Amino acid sequence: MSSPILTGPALRLGIAGLGTVGIGVVKIVQRHADMLAMRAGRPVQITAVCARDQNKDRGADLSGYAWETDAVTLAQRDDIDVFVEVMGGHEGAAKDATEAALRAGKDVVTANKALLAHHGQALAETAEANGQVIRFEAAVAGGIPCIKTLTEGLAGNQLRRVMGVMNGTCNYILTRMEDAGLPYDTVFEEANQLGYLESDPTLDVGGIDAGHKLALMASIAFGTKVAFENVQLEGIGRISIDDIRRAGDMGYKIKLLGVAQMTGRGLEQRMTPCLVPASSALGQLSGGTNMVVFEGDSVGQIVMRGAGAGEGPTASAIMGDVMDVARGLRLPTFGAPATQLVEAAPAVTAAPAPYYLRINLSDKPGALAKVAQTLGDAGISISRMRQYGHADTSAPVLIVTHKTTTDAIHYAVSQFPATGVVEGDPVALRIEEL
Amino acid sequence: MSSPILTGPALRLGIAGLGTVGIGVVKIVQRHADMLAMRAGRPVQITAVCARDQNKDRGADLSGYAWETDAVTLAQRDDIDVFVEVMGGHEGAAKDATEAALRAGKDVVTANKALLAHHGQALAETAEANGQVIRFEAAVAGGIPCIKTLTEGLAGNQLRRVMGVMNGTCNYILTRMEDAGLPYDTVFEEANQLGYLESDPTLDVGGIDAGHKLALMASIAFGTKVAFENVQLEGIGRISIDDIRRAGDMGYKIKLLGVAQMTGRGLEQRMTPCLVPASSALGQLSGGTNMVVFEGDSVGQIVMRGAGAGEGPTASAIMGDVMDVARGLRLPTFGAPATQLVEAAPAVTAAPAPYYLRINLSDKPGALAKVAQTLGDAGISISRMRQYGHADTSAPVLIVTHKTTTDAIHYAVSQFPATGVVEGDPVALRIEEL
Repeated sequence: MSSPILTGPALRLGIAGLGTVGIGVVKIVQRHADMLAMRAGRPVQITAVCARDQNKDRGADLSGYAWETDAVTLAQRDDIDVFVEVMGGHEGAAKDATEAALRAGKDVVTANKALLAHHGQALAETAEANGQVIRFEAAVAGGIPCIKTLTEGLAGNQLRRVMGVMNGTCNYILTRMEDAGLPYDTVFEEANQLGYLESDPTLDVGGIDAGHKLALMASIAFGTKVAFENVQLEGIGRISIDDIRRAGDMGYKIKLLGVAQMTGRGLEQRMTPCLVPASSALGQLSGGTNMVVFEGDSVGQIVMRGAGAGEGPTASAIMGDVMDVARGLRLPTFGAPATQLVEAAPAVTAAPAPYYLRINLSDKPGALAKVAQTLGDAGISISRMRQYGHADTSAPVLIVTHKTTTDAIHYAVSQFPATGVVEGDPVALRIEEL
Repeated sequence: MSSPILTGPALRLGIAGLGTVGIGVVKIVQRHADMLAMRAGRPVQITAVCARDQNKDRGADLSGYAWETDAVTLAQRDDIDVFVEVMGGHEGAAKDATEAALRAGKDVVTANKALLAHHGQALAETAEANGQVIRFEAAVAGGIPCIKTLTEGLAGNQLRRVMGVMNGTCNYILTRMEDAGLPYDTVFEEANQLGYLESDPTLDVGGIDAGHKLALMASIAFGTKVAFENVQLEGIGRISIDDIRRAGDMGYKIKLLGVAQMTGRGLEQRMTPCLVPASSALGQLSGGTNMVVFEGDSVGQIVMRGAGAGEGPTASAIMGDVMDVARGLRLPTFGAPATQLVEAAPAVTAAPAPYYLRINLSDKPGALAKVAQTLGDAGISISRMRQYGHADTSAPVLIVTHKTTTDAIHYAVSQFPATGVVEGDPVALRIEEL
């Protein structure tokens, strides 16, 4: 490669956090200095880094960079242009340092979904008041450039629906349960041993981490203020290997699926276990891979798939943002000015959908009729039904309903005990149509 | 939606070509004026359009726009900032008008893959010498923002391989042959009746259109000058329903697949029918949908899927580019300065790969041994083999080889006649590993 023509001064990065992702960024900047300079039209350099322990071997040569132990101090250094925040945590040092960076006139590139889900609106207003940018490709779906696609590539579209499988750990657990026929608790423990879980595992398996990501995408898609508190959250802890198998028998896979859509009843944001057709792109997603689906009024459906975590993919996303800043792209954080984002009323109920029901039915005459009657009374009609043979006194019955409402499902489930033929708790899972 | 705060003057578009795509752009600009203005921080307007017949009903109100019948005149108007070229054709009016627009200081947004595949380097040099930009998201894979993803989102990556199924018509024909069990000629005629084919169908079924797209992506991915003339092109005309079925028996689908990769032997660019695993994302792609796959050294593999053509998707891509210009993003056409792009030596042979062979074997003792011996002599080892029952004097034999070279396959095929046991022409198709 010939020596690049450089048309601008170097873009100087300060990297706060030298974990996997931070070191990934260091490695790219060191390995690809010429390539980055040619593509950006200017050099991209690291001038300072920040982490507590300077003596730890992190597998990269950091000797050329100034060292700070305090992220706020790093954020305020005169010799950095971009504050790269890869520390994590939505309060404390990450928040303080990000605010300090914006006040000091720095642009911010961050991988911190929790910080933005909780404080994105305030941070965006601060940034935009000062003419700074905050970019967060790495915060959502790892290496997949989905924030760029949504904010820029699809900027001519009114978005209809945004969906995603965005927590690789949950998808790993669900796929592994199915493939190995193991119960949730066992696979959860495996994932823990493998280091796949956050230190607070609820962030993963409770859907919180993925919910943060969904709330950020919803803001861009619908021009609304980030409203993580309105995301309906349900984790994967109650998914049994039985349901994974039964759903498979009916042609579905169970995914922790995020769905955001603007409806006549308000903004719907859900991060819940759903059934999706086994033959669909989402259904075929296995292991730790992420997938994001955008539906726009002109473009139709766009599907993106890639690694949702890891040093390389996440650092790739950080560097995409850094290169945008280096190339002079300056957009509002959520694609429209923060002061123009509206407060969306949360949808009280989800859009109608078919549901999957698993019911243990007593071995009594007329049992199935009573269940069917209860569903009929709730206004729910049955699309497909399957009853399994059984050795004991109850039989599993699987029902796929026609489109119905969450309210109708809840009502029917509440009436099942009174029938005297339903044993244990029925399982009801939404089927998301693609 | 509240009235947007506009921080800049309107961006004024001149649209050359009022076919499906041009009218699609008009509709978006009219329907979403407020949304576009809020997202761009300035209004996006159409000031002038160009087509021959002003009296034709095109399904959109064009009365507010100045009308030109000559694209060069449109390109030079003082009241446009961006020349939107959706006329098509790589010589004549489209080329003249694009050059005129650049000389007149306009930015260019184009859907014209042929123009850029043939003249992209010269046009990019002209544009960059004058500080103008040329953007061409709509030229590649319809609504999929793949050019943006490659140029910007993956800017921190050294690309390893770029792949794509990028001609919807070819994929429609191949899928339809399989689903309906119809021969190529019949489905080709169907596609023609449905208006799916270009007026010169060789552009589609000969792989030329898709080859243009591949050459453009290769330039961005590898920092090389567009070299369409070095794309190894092979259309789908020789694919038989028999091969589609036999490949299916072996677990593969046949796709017109583009592959570009930089190897030690030079830049490899192929647009040829290949086998891909039926269970892979590429294998599952059916109908007119497009798919693009990027492999980068940090990000790993990113897959994008969406509509490859049509009014809405293509207009969406045009508007993505228009919005980038409105927002002030100014990049070199191919992601690095045109004067810095290198002339890549074309790879003389493709990277080694497994191959699928279909051979009609005479019903003679020792026939299979002779074929196996011929392959062995060519240095080709067999991974899987399947012989079918037969009613006449020859039997179809399917062979999946281990990784081998194109040269070895050609040599073996050339030796088959001398064995005296191979009837007709053997079929050899590369299996692309994903």
